[in-house]
Amino acid sequence: MNIEMIRAAAQRLNGFARRTPLLSSPFIDALAGRRVWIKPECLQHTGSFKFRGAWSAVSALDSDIRAKGVIAFSSGNHAQGVAMAAARHNVPSVIVMPADAPALKIENTRALGAEVVLYDRANEDRDLIGAEIAQARDLTMIKPFDEPQVIAGQGTAGLEIAEQAAKVGVTKADVLVCCGGGGLTSGIALALEADAPGLRVRPVEPEGFDDVARSLRSGRIERNAATSGNICDAIITPQPGDLTFPILQRLCGPGLTVNEGEALQAMAQAFLRLKLVAEPGGAVALAAAICRQDQIEGDDLVVMISGGNVDPDLFSQCLETLP
Amino acid sequence: MNIEMIRAAAQRLNGFARRTPLLSSPFIDALAGRRVWIKPECLQHTGSFKFRGAWSAVSALDSDIRAKGVIAFSSGNHAQGVAMAAARHNVPSVIVMPADAPALKIENTRALGAEVVLYDRANEDRDLIGAEIAQARDLTMIKPFDEPQVIAGQGTAGLEIAEQAAKVGVTKADVLVCCGGGGLTSGIALALEADAPGLRVRPVEPEGFDDVARSLRSGRIERNAATSGNICDAIITPQPGDLTFPILQRLCGPGLTVNEGEALQAMAQAFLRLKLVAEPGGAVALAAAICRQDQIEGDDLVVMISGGNVDPDLFSQCLETLP
Repeated sequence: MNIEMIRAAAQRLNGFARRTPLLSSPFIDALAGRRVWIKPECLQHTGSFKFRGAWSAVSALDSDIRAKGVIAFSSGNHAQGVAMAAARHNVPSVIVMPADAPALKIENTRALGAEVVLYDRANEDRDLIGAEIAQARDLTMIKPFDEPQVIAGQGTAGLEIAEQAAKVGVTKADVLVCCGGGGLTSGIALALEADAPGLRVRPVEPEGFDDVARSLRSGRIERNAATSGNICDAIITPQPGDLTFPILQRLCGPGLTVNEGEALQAMAQAFLRLKLVAEPGGAVALAAAICRQDQIEGDDLVVMISGGNVDPDLFSQCLETLP
Repeated sequence: MNIEMIRAAAQRLNGFARRTPLLSSPFIDALAGRRVWIKPECLQHTGSFKFRGAWSAVSALDSDIRAKGVIAFSSGNHAQGVAMAAARHNVPSVIVMPADAPALKIENTRALGAEVVLYDRANEDRDLIGAEIAQARDLTMIKPFDEPQVIAGQGTAGLEIAEQAAKVGVTKADVLVCCGGGGLTSGIALALEADAPGLRVRPVEPEGFDDVARSLRSGRIERNAATSGNICDAIITPQPGDLTFPILQRLCGPGLTVNEGEALQAMAQAFLRLKLVAEPGGAVALAAAICRQDQIEGDDLVVMISGGNVDPDLFSQCLETLP
């Protein structure tokens, strides 16, 4: 895993992934007590940064292997990223999803061109089902984060941040990244190490699901006690990845955590001041910028909004936090 | 009023206004029955395209005149655009607003650096108050649309559309623009005439407030019977401008209209598929793309989302239209 892989991924993504802008608002600056630069990956294809990693992984396959198709487990953003990346390469994709996933997510994944295989979360083994289908049809598994070409794809967001920050004169700042398994966080950290060494990544997680922050503190991989029961579900994983953790350990500053109410409050500010739709897990970095000022240093801050796939009901709930 | 003024405005806006991206979604394409390219000016500074015209007008003033300050009438997007453009030029601004304007809008305009002067809509004459203050303090009035440098500023969005459309291979298409007094619509039309002659602008208005569409049909300036009572208030004006109408007449295709329910539906799709916050008046072009397919020709369509300054309550209402 190295910077050359990220640069190669950027070449493959060029013209296919969206180069998202770097936004700011004087109102957000006032809330955060410093200048805040927002990288809105909710504007990426399929509504999250996951399209970058999916495109990177699918496009990196040998064409005869790719032609047979790809497979992924996911009920969320990774599913949509892989489905669209495969469809735009004109190759089949199978997404294994729990039968109780929201109907709209299943429908969207199908509409993006994937074959959806449902399994019963209580009585069936997801990994076994996936492995059987993959073997029977000779499909390549696209893992959500612990996979070098996926990390490389997510890292392309970091190359853009380095360029865009330099353009606005920011050479020293913390970069807050919403963190699940660490694919996005480690990819961005590698990109910034090479192209903007004055920018330091700090992972942000939901309170109670802070496996990365605790692992960074203890120096070894720590697990979460639970992996559900929080509105930030998109960024909750059992533990940091075997590939991602050493990168995080080498390059990241201390982790930050925010609670659900703070994530909702950040979604409301993204609505009001940035005109962006953020999902709870995609808003935790902005929440930390606003609610954890005392744990952050420096006059400038870069904040990733990593996704915007949120149900209307939950979004209405965040709007109710506004005066 | 000519293309050179728009190119000069683009020079002055460079580095200060945001170059908004050109977005797309396969789901929006499916709803519209053709390929749709979205220009999201809700992501512009202050949440609407108005910042372009305001910056253009303020930056075009002689520096000794500008130093004395500027004044504008507005309770909405133009107010915020002028306030921020003046503040970033380090010159004072006075915004004359009705005393019954929403408290948040008054507060925002002040927070952006303006002095807000309130008047009683029932008993006071806005124009008289504005003229007195302007004269007493030697301030320059920045009109909302019927002003060459404002039209030039809005036209910079058209230069960007021409470039961005060419980049994705679109050389022939209708361009749907949310239309009030016609500043944005005429500015874009002039820019496209020069840089992308295969792209044709079509104004979109709220039903019952279609002064531009009727004026285009009759060949002379027609007035609206009412100027309030519609959620698309941001784009309701008494009649097309004296400067803007001849440009619209020479360059635009037939106007389109949509109703309030259709505007809400388009806001919901912008939320769901583009992760953008659109205000009702800012969503009418997208609404026409979805609901007036039979009145539009061609495989490609460019759609302006012109602003995103919407109250949380009204936004929740649009979300309720979703399944």
